[in-house]
Amino acid sequence: MKLTKKRIAEIVFDHNDWASRTFDVVLLVLIFGSVIVATLDSVAELRSRFGTTFYILEVVFTVLFTIEYILRVWLTGKTLRYVTSFYGIVDLLAILPFYLSFFVADVQLLTVVRALRLLRVVRILKLGRYLSEADFISQSLKASMAKIQIFLFTVLTVVLIMGTLMYLVEGPSSGFTSIPRGMYWAIVTLTTVGFGDITPSTPLGQFIASLIMLLGYAIIAVPTGIVSSEMAKRRNPHDLIHSKTCHSCGAEGLGIDDKFCKKCGGEL
Amino acid sequence: MKLTKKRIAEIVFDHNDWASRTFDVVLLVLIFGSVIVATLDSVAELRSRFGTTFYILEVVFTVLFTIEYILRVWLTGKTLRYVTSFYGIVDLLAILPFYLSFFVADVQLLTVVRALRLLRVVRILKLGRYLSEADFISQSLKASMAKIQIFLFTVLTVVLIMGTLMYLVEGPSSGFTSIPRGMYWAIVTLTTVGFGDITPSTPLGQFIASLIMLLGYAIIAVPTGIVSSEMAKRRNPHDLIHSKTCHSCGAEGLGIDDKFCKKCGGEL
Amino acid sequence: MKLTKKRIAEIVFDHNDWASRTFDVVLLVLIFGSVIVATLDSVAELRSRFGTTFYILEVVFTVLFTIEYILRVWLTGKTLRYVTSFYGIVDLLAILPFYLSFFVADVQLLTVVRALRLLRVVRILKLGRYLSEADFISQSLKASMAKIQIFLFTVLTVVLIMGTLMYLVEGPSSGFTSIPRGMYWAIVTLTTVGFGDITPSTPLGQFIASLIMLLGYAIIAVPTGIVSSEMAKRRNPHDLIHSKTCHSCGAEGLGIDDKFCKKCGGEL
Amino acid sequence: MKLTKKRIAEIVFDHNDWASRTFDVVLLVLIFGSVIVATLDSVAELRSRFGTTFYILEVVFTVLFTIEYILRVWLTGKTLRYVTSFYGIVDLLAILPFYLSFFVADVQLLTVVRALRLLRVVRILKLGRYLSEADFISQSLKASMAKIQIFLFTVLTVVLIMGTLMYLVEGPSSGFTSIPRGMYWAIVTLTTVGFGDITPSTPLGQFIASLIMLLGYAIIAVPTGIVSSEMAKRRNPHDLIHSKTCHSCGAEGLGIDDKFCKKCGGEL
Repeated sequence: MKLTKKRIAEIVFDHNDWASRTFDVVLLVLIFGSVIVATLDSVAELRSRFGTTFYILEVVFTVLFTIEYILRVWLTGKTLRYVTSFYGIVDLLAILPFYLSFFVADVQLLTVVRALRLLRVVRILKLGRYLSEADFISQSLKASMAKIQIFLFTVLTVVLIMGTLMYLVEGPSSGFTSIPRGMYWAIVTLTTVGFGDITPSTPLGQFIASLIMLLGYAIIAVPTGIVSSEMAKRRNPHDLIHSKTCHSCGAEGLGIDDKFCKKCGGEL
Repeated sequence: MKLTKKRIAEIVFDHNDWASRTFDVVLLVLIFGSVIVATLDSVAELRSRFGTTFYILEVVFTVLFTIEYILRVWLTGKTLRYVTSFYGIVDLLAILPFYLSFFVADVQLLTVVRALRLLRVVRILKLGRYLSEADFISQSLKASMAKIQIFLFTVLTVVLIMGTLMYLVEGPSSGFTSIPRGMYWAIVTLTTVGFGDITPSTPLGQFIASLIMLLGYAIIAVPTGIVSSEMAKRRNPHDLIHSKTCHSCGAEGLGIDDKFCKKCGGEL
Repeated sequence: MKLTKKRIAEIVFDHNDWASRTFDVVLLVLIFGSVIVATLDSVAELRSRFGTTFYILEVVFTVLFTIEYILRVWLTGKTLRYVTSFYGIVDLLAILPFYLSFFVADVQLLTVVRALRLLRVVRILKLGRYLSEADFISQSLKASMAKIQIFLFTVLTVVLIMGTLMYLVEGPSSGFTSIPRGMYWAIVTLTTVGFGDITPSTPLGQFIASLIMLLGYAIIAVPTGIVSSEMAKRRNPHDLIHSKTCHSCGAEGLGIDDKFCKKCGGEL
Repeated sequence: MKLTKKRIAEIVFDHNDWASRTFDVVLLVLIFGSVIVATLDSVAELRSRFGTTFYILEVVFTVLFTIEYILRVWLTGKTLRYVTSFYGIVDLLAILPFYLSFFVADVQLLTVVRALRLLRVVRILKLGRYLSEADFISQSLKASMAKIQIFLFTVLTVVLIMGTLMYLVEGPSSGFTSIPRGMYWAIVTLTTVGFGDITPSTPLGQFIASLIMLLGYAIIAVPTGIVSSEMAKRRNPHDLIHSKTCHSCGAEGLGIDDKFCKKCGGEL
């Protein structure tokens, strides 16, 4: 089989035959590998020991991702559309920082470039291409978005007023040095994270904090309720696969171990 | 078009034409701007650098909100009703602290006035006028209120008894200096916030704390369950699209795959 | 109206006329008052200032609760049943510690008696008599109890194994001095309380801790799901009050603004 | 009744008569006892006082569990299948570490063996045999597994990117010494555990942390929604009692107040 442009496009974009599936698996391994290397490279002890290995691997990964990027630009019919698409930008960000470091001679800019190299972790987003099953969740979230926005706005109003109140009541001596810090504390508390880096020390402050916590406990139900009721409504497309369809009356969603259609009584 | 009183009232109270929408947008920008300025003004470093700018902006915001308040008082047919309404009080609190500071010469009262100036953040509540969509959430919460009250009462009983128990078991050496502090700790723990400013240090205390935490984990389900079931019950207008209507009796909201109306028995 | 034994029993046990309602309100005030006094009495600063007042109030409360207890024992037909019932024991525990303190001369026993006096806070449980509306929640919880027990058992198995693992991996240097302490930490983490009094410091320990946290995040859904689905099934008795009943066919739970019965079509 | 091999197999594997139930109860007591001893043995104070008692108990438990293991291997028809099954491995792990300690003379290996002895706590898993009621929960979890996996993958992507961002913004001075540590912090925060061992100290870091927390608060709804909707779908056998069955077509689970079968239209 000759490697025509059409054949290569099939390998890169499709998932149906041996060659294209191998391409996918290799890409998956590369993505995971490069993200793991970038992550381990940030650990001081590991960099001092395996720094050179990490750098060589990074060069290999970047070259391969560059080939992938060039292939995609060359193969796609609509180059501009790909380049400006979400995955086009992710694919570019995954290789750009490496090449940038060669064009920067200035010492001061080196810190910025080193920071940019951490953009390598966005390569993980390249995985999104393989996750079409996430539709169910994102649909439920999208349908609930309007309600969640209103909810978040309400939470932020509470956070603003509570943060101001605690700034007033506790003051800088307990760590509430400004309203933004008070708001940071209110978010830490209302979301039940509770780091404990800033805590109320006066009885009045502890009383107000208790009210905020109970409030958080009571309203944690709201986002859960919104998404739950949205999901309960939505029929799971997955379920249709694990269910029988009646050949007599066409009823869908029948139990996989039912012997007769519960709608028309026809044998399954 | 002449600016009659009726025309101005339209601009201020309605949201249908170009002029009234511009009024709304300007007001929204002013509200957000003034709250952000009040917030940043509380940060010591920013106040020392931009203090004068903040003060000038504050004067501008207050003058504009004063004009808005006078307009609303003048335009509304029922002045007393507006002035004593929720938004009437919010509108007044948003401007009052500024003017108060001029009438206070006494040094000692200055601290109180400075505190009152923080009332400026309540301006955020003025936004509530633009949030009619919050009805769905507030209705679900209102319907669940009776149950949530009983739930909160139960939680407070647990908090009282657990706080007393921990005060008894751990004592002042671990930070449990009184029953109210023990209750504060119990709330921090039961709501899974867990600051860590007070923690049990004796084995018995840690055992009781573990029980409280598992209890909190088990009962976190209750408020969620209450609101979820309330939301699931409430009919979403969206649902009507995904349901059948009986042609015999006109019943709505029937299952999309039902063959007979469960209300009148008519074939669908 | 003469104060016969039957009349007094009506006042004490019923809630229908002026006298019995007054009795209820007075009792509610006494319960709240005595609990608040017991709570404030534990704060060192308040006791040193208002100690005598607190003691006098305590004497008054105890005398009144003693009268209530004697009345209930005298009025009830089945004395033994009342004395051994839940509220009978609560009513006794609410007054017993006070009288015990007179019969103890030994210095060493005084600490125990002082501790016992804290039993006064159980008076809050006397409020339970007025909360018949809690049925809905307790029924849902009872129906879910079997599932929640299995869930808690699973959680405890995870806690045991994770606590042992962390004790092995982190060791005493990070605060994991024994398996029970490791289990305490695992509960603190799995319930998302996260005090921070014991935290992993080795990379391996932090990795295992991350797994525990994600596990906790994923299984927090289980108790919520259990109770939610139980509540969604259960019909709220409250709803019947806010609904219409069809006079033609007797159908209950109709919408408050429906004009025709959705069951039989009869006019409402 | 003679103790034939068949009779012993009945006692060991079944739960129907007096002898087999006694066997079960004895085994349950042994499992709980051995786990409690292993747990208490790890507490330094208790080991120094009761060390010998713990060791004798441990010998007794191990001998009895060894007899149980030999019995099971002997009685089962398919020895290989049992030995390689989940419970076969658990049963072996429960006794192996004890015997291993006799065959190790080397001082250095002693630490490893001491660690292995903690494997005794896996004996708790032997309890799983008695928990067939857990089916409802594990079925709901299994059905939701695909969605929960996607959800966890999304969470890990957020964790990777947020951890990198915080490593960049906060740096080693606040404890963010590497990307893995940043990811550990992101997991601690996103799951609302919030130990507080690493916390952001710069305003920008606190702002990003606030976003992560609100994100965590909003998406905590997702796993809950997934499992809740799965459980609500699953028919509870209990429900059948509170529902009608159609006498015409035999359809079960019909609403208790429906007048016509929604399946066949027959009057109920």
